[in-house]
Amino acid sequence: MNDKHIPRPVVKRLSVYLRRFQREAGRGGKTLTSKELAETLDITSALVRRDLARLSRMGRPGVGYDVAATIEQLRHILGTDEVRGVIVVGVGGLGGALLSYEGFTRRGFELVAAFDVDKRKIGRKIGGVLIHELSALPTVVRKHRVKLAILTAPADAAQDIMPLLKDSGITGVLNFAPVTLVVPPEVSIAQVDIAARLERLSYFTRAAHEA
Amino acid sequence: MNDKHIPRPVVKRLSVYLRRFQREAGRGGKTLTSKELAETLDITSALVRRDLARLSRMGRPGVGYDVAATIEQLRHILGTDEVRGVIVVGVGGLGGALLSYEGFTRRGFELVAAFDVDKRKIGRKIGGVLIHELSALPTVVRKHRVKLAILTAPADAAQDIMPLLKDSGITGVLNFAPVTLVVPPEVSIAQVDIAARLERLSYFTRAAHEA
Repeated sequence: MNDKHIPRPVVKRLSVYLRRFQREAGRGGKTLTSKELAETLDITSALVRRDLARLSRMGRPGVGYDVAATIEQLRHILGTDEVRGVIVVGVGGLGGALLSYEGFTRRGFELVAAFDVDKRKIGRKIGGVLIHELSALPTVVRKHRVKLAILTAPADAAQDIMPLLKDSGITGVLNFAPVTLVVPPEVSIAQVDIAARLERLSYFTRAAHEA
Repeated sequence: MNDKHIPRPVVKRLSVYLRRFQREAGRGGKTLTSKELAETLDITSALVRRDLARLSRMGRPGVGYDVAATIEQLRHILGTDEVRGVIVVGVGGLGGALLSYEGFTRRGFELVAAFDVDKRKIGRKIGGVLIHELSALPTVVRKHRVKLAILTAPADAAQDIMPLLKDSGITGVLNFAPVTLVVPPEVSIAQVDIAARLERLSYFTRAAHEA
């Protein structure tokens, strides 16, 4: 199973399939057909089957994909079959809220540490996660072999933190700071820009309003 | 200028162009070329020019797009040229953090009210925004003519809140609850699924690690 070079849109869909399979497992379902999956994503069954042809255990015509086996395989492909450590860098309001967010564990992520430069915060715990001084980041990241960071630092500090993350071995950054970061090729970055999402919604609501 | 039916990917790029123009304005720049914009988005200059052909004031060959005029036009298209009211529904950790988030105002959004069902929170203010009882939502939304809602309610409550939002006149929902919501056709929805973003990053970091 060569899963090293799956295109970004396919990875996105695999993640959505996984959620759908997990929901099905939660309600006791044993199989899901490509048609059911296609309806969830509003795509064609053919595309679902093509995406899931990456699995070693295929769906059976007229029966569908085995829920338990497919969850296992999708988690393996996505790299969440083992618990993966995540750090939170910047414990302002949003960083603090994410430390208390309980949706990570059941998706295979564990928040192992948080970092800030504010001395009043260091040594405190939020959601059971200890806040360290930023300078301790390389040691903590290496010790726990963390690859993923959630960056909730202020916009003007976010870019300056990137070299520290990279040099410590972080290879994936989920950035909440409302700036486009320049990252080295070894690091994958995903941007969560809340105001930009509102901006796009704004267009569609206005269009709906005026239509 | 017919801006009612701009496809979703184009709207997304217009929003990114706007951010780029605003950054340029912040550092005193007067013009931006399609080539500079293309580099920001890692797309072709031809695509930039095609996207921006929707503006009534075009770029000039060899000079580029006028920063101030283009910002004005993009904000008009996106509907953020007037301040737009937004409500936050569900004041847990994340909702509370968003109420304190200062990135909305300069993007043309104003948080006008928050809502929760927890009586201990009602009447309190976070980031200057008053928390109301959920039952007051229709009155407040109609009074301020709010069209946009940020939904930070718990996963199991989010779907139940949708009819209330829709009946109150909300036409755009930014959903942070980790569930796929069923929405009526009058309502546009955008999903911010933090764990799903980590999941996709996880794949790319693993691939980088093993490559």
